[in-house]
Amino acid sequence: MSGEGSARWEQAIHWPMLLASFAWLVAYSWSVIAVPVGADRTLALAVMGVTWVFFVVDYVVRLVQSGGHLSWVRGHLWELLVVALPMLRALRLLQFMTLAPGLRRSAGTALRTRIAIYGAGAALLLVYLGGLIVLDVERRAPGGNIDTFGDAIWWAFVTLATVGYGDFYPVTMIGRTVAVGLMLSGIAVVGVVTATLSSWIIERAALGRDDDEPSTRGQLRAVARQIDDLARRLGEPGDGTAEKEDA
Amino acid sequence: MSGEGSARWEQAIHWPMLLASFAWLVAYSWSVIAVPVGADRTLALAVMGVTWVFFVVDYVVRLVQSGGHLSWVRGHLWELLVVALPMLRALRLLQFMTLAPGLRRSAGTALRTRIAIYGAGAALLLVYLGGLIVLDVERRAPGGNIDTFGDAIWWAFVTLATVGYGDFYPVTMIGRTVAVGLMLSGIAVVGVVTATLSSWIIERAALGRDDDEPSTRGQLRAVARQIDDLARRLGEPGDGTAEKEDA
Amino acid sequence: MSGEGSARWEQAIHWPMLLASFAWLVAYSWSVIAVPVGADRTLALAVMGVTWVFFVVDYVVRLVQSGGHLSWVRGHLWELLVVALPMLRALRLLQFMTLAPGLRRSAGTALRTRIAIYGAGAALLLVYLGGLIVLDVERRAPGGNIDTFGDAIWWAFVTLATVGYGDFYPVTMIGRTVAVGLMLSGIAVVGVVTATLSSWIIERAALGRDDDEPSTRGQLRAVARQIDDLARRLGEPGDGTAEKEDA
Amino acid sequence: MSGEGSARWEQAIHWPMLLASFAWLVAYSWSVIAVPVGADRTLALAVMGVTWVFFVVDYVVRLVQSGGHLSWVRGHLWELLVVALPMLRALRLLQFMTLAPGLRRSAGTALRTRIAIYGAGAALLLVYLGGLIVLDVERRAPGGNIDTFGDAIWWAFVTLATVGYGDFYPVTMIGRTVAVGLMLSGIAVVGVVTATLSSWIIERAALGRDDDEPSTRGQLRAVARQIDDLARRLGEPGDGTAEKEDA
Repeated sequence: MSGEGSARWEQAIHWPMLLASFAWLVAYSWSVIAVPVGADRTLALAVMGVTWVFFVVDYVVRLVQSGGHLSWVRGHLWELLVVALPMLRALRLLQFMTLAPGLRRSAGTALRTRIAIYGAGAALLLVYLGGLIVLDVERRAPGGNIDTFGDAIWWAFVTLATVGYGDFYPVTMIGRTVAVGLMLSGIAVVGVVTATLSSWIIERAALGRDDDEPSTRGQLRAVARQIDDLARRLGEPGDGTAEKEDA
Repeated sequence: MSGEGSARWEQAIHWPMLLASFAWLVAYSWSVIAVPVGADRTLALAVMGVTWVFFVVDYVVRLVQSGGHLSWVRGHLWELLVVALPMLRALRLLQFMTLAPGLRRSAGTALRTRIAIYGAGAALLLVYLGGLIVLDVERRAPGGNIDTFGDAIWWAFVTLATVGYGDFYPVTMIGRTVAVGLMLSGIAVVGVVTATLSSWIIERAALGRDDDEPSTRGQLRAVARQIDDLARRLGEPGDGTAEKEDA
Repeated sequence: MSGEGSARWEQAIHWPMLLASFAWLVAYSWSVIAVPVGADRTLALAVMGVTWVFFVVDYVVRLVQSGGHLSWVRGHLWELLVVALPMLRALRLLQFMTLAPGLRRSAGTALRTRIAIYGAGAALLLVYLGGLIVLDVERRAPGGNIDTFGDAIWWAFVTLATVGYGDFYPVTMIGRTVAVGLMLSGIAVVGVVTATLSSWIIERAALGRDDDEPSTRGQLRAVARQIDDLARRLGEPGDGTAEKEDA
Repeated sequence: MSGEGSARWEQAIHWPMLLASFAWLVAYSWSVIAVPVGADRTLALAVMGVTWVFFVVDYVVRLVQSGGHLSWVRGHLWELLVVALPMLRALRLLQFMTLAPGLRRSAGTALRTRIAIYGAGAALLLVYLGGLIVLDVERRAPGGNIDTFGDAIWWAFVTLATVGYGDFYPVTMIGRTVAVGLMLSGIAVVGVVTATLSSWIIERAALGRDDDEPSTRGQLRAVARQIDDLARRLGEPGDGTAEKEDA
């Protein structure tokens, strides 16, 4: 029953959570890029605070629904981290993207197209969020050299692509942690691009040589039916499957 | 009828468009590298202007042929971008290369050879064009450090290979956008090289073990013919395909 | 008998060796990061010395068990290197990880999960150890620019990901050798990520097209049983395998 | 007859050419690293001169044997380049390595082992030769920053691994051309490592699921023999292959 309630909660909360993550990202972006003061600053902080309460409530509801077991906490560390660190909240947008139904079911070219679209979306979100956090922390750090939003996004791209000119680089612990995350994402991007191309080239390289292609399951089923038919004509109908008697 | 007219137009315009793109690239290269003055400058600008008019006419003709629908504009955003940004025009040369008939039809080693040739050509064109645009915009930018054609091409190679020494780097929005394009192209180049090698190694690693290779469609067709033949000898000729009656 | 004794020795020494490697790494880490003085320094050096003696004894025992042949020495150069260079000792922790039974036996998704976990563990250990050694040697070098543990770990990550900002770089022979090791590890990490994703995408891209899939060995065995059964009905039982007489 | 003479010449010249390439590399290394003066310098130049004459003679002999046709020159541009540019001569050592018989014939794990060994050897030779040439030209260049052999080899590794710290970088046309060559080699190294791992993982990921594996050619040949045998028992011996009569 708690599993049923949990599934109902997740379904009901799906879109509100997506909106809350988006609202938080907009408020955080505004507060970092425009550095608002007075009433504007209060508004940005208020939106971030309200959405944060929203995330805490979601976490607590799900914890209670699971029966408050420690094993649930251990199995959902990412959810705890998202509650503790507001910086990571916006990545929930990615998490929702992963849940997109299409990505799970498709095959062949459709799969490759979806992987490419999802990969590009994830990379852009990571560059945007990474640049934002690094600008937020590096701007205030002594010896920091990333001071404008343009430089931060440029630095994030240079890091994700593992180019690393060295015209900008983070000097704080948080900035460097974000940088490591971007580097690892960059390695994953290279991997996704290469793997997708590999799948395409390997499939393409096998075209146009039908007789040399691996025989298919459909072909073999047809042969099994031929033999079955032959057996029937010999007076004793087969049953459509090979008999398993020892010879 | 409009589809037919559009196909005729595209066929008729294929080579003139290629020439116009090439002429534009030569004129732009000349104006950026040699920085001509007086009559020379007028000539370069004239060639660029005439070819630009050519691109606009092509776009308008195709828009009219499609019936002027907004859906055509939405489905051909790249063509609109090429008209709006002269910098992107030369990439049309790549677009034509993609249309090369051979690339579409080959398999196995032939496919890999064509991918390698096309990939190398695309990479060189991107380095040349990227270097050119960056030189054009960075030379005039305050704080810019890319001042000669040699430095610009060197920087473009260092960026495409994702090495990024940091001896040269762009400081303008346009220069950085070009740099991101080169980085992404570099990741694609790594992907293409790896995928092509993978396809080759996976094919090679399976050689010399014929009995352990997947059985082929040709083999299975031969077996189906054997059974068919056997059935015929039993008095009732098969029809060459497995019969689909339920057993 | 010496082979048997050697296997018994390796089994008996497995866990003590793992502990000794770990103890050495802790002592070395402490001496490099905290730069202890007085009694603390003596303790760290004592632990490192005792574990070193432990490694020498292991090497000598295994050399004697092999009969002291030069061919054994030639075939176990890594073990000799580990004895000669204390810096490499901690990599034994990796060596033990490689021996984990699970990694050898699994297939498909289980294999990919284990490769990912092992790869991530190996990369983290290499970054930690690389940063430690580089800090140890670069801190004392004239012109060296890596002075704190945080900078050393940051530099190791930037090197492994082949980003190379250039904000920190080694200037000594040992530091540069470690850097080359980290770069090669980084290339291997990219390779492992890409290969694992490739295997997954290639498997996924083939899903949902059962009739077009290569026919399986199980299917073919069923067909062979069908034919066998048919032959038996014709009066002469087959023996369950194809007869090898020339036709 | 000229083809026969050419094959005989190539066989006779195989080992002397390898030795000459090696002698040239030793002499060039010595002249660049040790900067010998007086009689030593004369000796180094003499060795380089003699081996250069050797390469010219080989080229001329092969040109004459081919009948002096321009088509031969066009098909052997690399050989012409090697004669014209002494810097490229040592790469002949790689060319010979490619001709190693083992690399052509092996499959599976043996193929992967050979690819790894050959790739590592090629990468080391490229780093050594690249470092040497860059040291030779950059040392004398105004604004050049690569002055010692150690720095040159370090720079070559940093470039091959596409790390690019930027602590050293070439400023001359020749140095940058060598750098581009090293970068492309680095991309190839990443590709080879990834492709080899992919081939291994894809093979491994399929293990332990024998019934789900593609049926083999050996299996299908056994089934064909079973049917053949069955046909023989029905009074009309088959001929061991499927008959090609239309049904």
